[in-house]
Amino acid sequence: MQITALAGGVGGARFLRGLLDHLGPTAGHPDPSDPQPSPARLTVIGNTGDDITLYGLRVCPDLDTLMYTLGGVIDEGQGWGRAGESRRLQDELVAYGAQPQWFTLGDLDLATHVVRSQWLGQGLPPSEVTARLAARWGLPDLGVRLLPMSDDPIETHVVVDEGDGPLAMHFQEWWVRLRAAVPAQRFVAVGMDRARPAPGVLEAIAEADVVLLPPSNPVVSIGVILGVPGLREALRATSAPVVGVSPVVNGAPVRGYADACLAALDLPATASAVAGLYADLLDGWLVDEADASAGPWPDQVQVRARPLLMRDRTAAAELAGATLDLARELAPRRPRS
Amino acid sequence: MQITALAGGVGGARFLRGLLDHLGPTAGHPDPSDPQPSPARLTVIGNTGDDITLYGLRVCPDLDTLMYTLGGVIDEGQGWGRAGESRRLQDELVAYGAQPQWFTLGDLDLATHVVRSQWLGQGLPPSEVTARLAARWGLPDLGVRLLPMSDDPIETHVVVDEGDGPLAMHFQEWWVRLRAAVPAQRFVAVGMDRARPAPGVLEAIAEADVVLLPPSNPVVSIGVILGVPGLREALRATSAPVVGVSPVVNGAPVRGYADACLAALDLPATASAVAGLYADLLDGWLVDEADASAGPWPDQVQVRARPLLMRDRTAAAELAGATLDLARELAPRRPRS
Repeated sequence: MQITALAGGVGGARFLRGLLDHLGPTAGHPDPSDPQPSPARLTVIGNTGDDITLYGLRVCPDLDTLMYTLGGVIDEGQGWGRAGESRRLQDELVAYGAQPQWFTLGDLDLATHVVRSQWLGQGLPPSEVTARLAARWGLPDLGVRLLPMSDDPIETHVVVDEGDGPLAMHFQEWWVRLRAAVPAQRFVAVGMDRARPAPGVLEAIAEADVVLLPPSNPVVSIGVILGVPGLREALRATSAPVVGVSPVVNGAPVRGYADACLAALDLPATASAVAGLYADLLDGWLVDEADASAGPWPDQVQVRARPLLMRDRTAAAELAGATLDLARELAPRRPRS
Repeated sequence: MQITALAGGVGGARFLRGLLDHLGPTAGHPDPSDPQPSPARLTVIGNTGDDITLYGLRVCPDLDTLMYTLGGVIDEGQGWGRAGESRRLQDELVAYGAQPQWFTLGDLDLATHVVRSQWLGQGLPPSEVTARLAARWGLPDLGVRLLPMSDDPIETHVVVDEGDGPLAMHFQEWWVRLRAAVPAQRFVAVGMDRARPAPGVLEAIAEADVVLLPPSNPVVSIGVILGVPGLREALRATSAPVVGVSPVVNGAPVRGYADACLAALDLPATASAVAGLYADLLDGWLVDEADASAGPWPDQVQVRARPLLMRDRTAAAELAGATLDLARELAPRRPRS
């Protein structure tokens, strides 16, 4: 079974780790001497709209959270960054007066950004760089292929009004420095109009048996991925059922500031509102038991209620299993027009 | 008294730290509320031919050795790099397969290269970046101005023959990876023909009361600095006496592979041969007592013999004092034609 998933950062990463736990070890090779890893059973299309250049280094927060989580080196407590991290280098940068100082980068994590920047500087496309980085963490051996949504530069900016009229800032500045406390008027994905899906993205959607939308931010993660030209159409056209997991439980995001993002779209933070954003492509939708009767739900969408909180890896694996069960029930689907 | 010195790495840095020890604290400001540091009493023109881009980061080994040594944060044992260093980030780079792996970079030191690269990427010239970096380590408060010899890119390459004909490699690869064990046929300062002295370099030579040549490598440090167009002429034209300290004692370099460098010029590793390289601009020359009768010495050069080994800071300060004594004896000099 070929699974393709769209994903943001922490929530998506934990769900997909649960999915791998649910699937169990890869079957491995018929021929153990074959240096090629087994074909991917899971293709993850990661959001790159959060990417930012800090200290001249290219940082891809969502791809790295996915890579570190699936690779088993994530800082479990905070959900992002490397376990066993230190902060000697950035303390030096601060002492030199380098800017900005509101984004924390650990020493181990910085190595990822240094080597990524080196390889990008040598002319490798982001998808190739991502594959090289992921190889170190064994993702191919897990049957996982991690793709950026696009090789073209896309940066999500946020328009706010702090009293002096509209001001646009990088998404990370709004999210990390301002903690999304200043109301967003709108989000602008700079570069999106000229962007193309990364190699393999459209094929992974077209050829999938199942497409999953993990509980990631529906506006600045999944929403940005869906904005890549051609991607939304591919999701409507595929014969794979598209099944999602609500990132909102009982009127509040499980993690992060999805409520502040939905507010910029004049939408409430409800499982129903998020489903509405996917109405044209969604077939199945998992909501929390607390939201079982909290529709309305889009036409053609099968809704199932079950506990959504991923309190541990077991819970995440069970949730992933339930998502796959619903997908199997709905497969194959009739492509949407 | 205005002192201008040309300098490479470890030997030059230790000599100049001794010079500052000899000079004692700066007089300080007439007006302590003046935020400007006192005017520089020592201008150091550092070699940048050793500079190299590693992992996409710009590394300036000689400037950094000078900065860390004078700033009091050098690793005393090895003579370069930061005290209290760790190597977490580069271990990660190696694990990712990043190249090259023969050049050691500590975590604290890497921060210097990251912020330097960031500022260079923002369009600041190397001289401005160097000033910003040096400010953190208090060099202005010590009355020290650290200048790169040029803001233009110059890289010393080494031509060797490992059996398949001439092969050019970056100086650092020959020095660090090969430990200068493969005979150098010649050195090529790539970019030198189009280079100009950095802002302030020619003025610092013209306006100096004393010009010093510390015991740095005469070929790949001092020799490369002297190759910057206009610099050698400025040293001949200044009315300041030019006094040097031999980096060779009793037929061997005090440190490093100056003998291998001199061999590429068909010169023996002697204090006499090094003085010959400076014959057109040198006024005073300090040699070790072991070399007191080991001329010939160039015409017009006053030679003094004394212990040259800088076993500790006290010895370095005494050597610097002796160098200044000789300079005072020879000042003012008649410009060379």
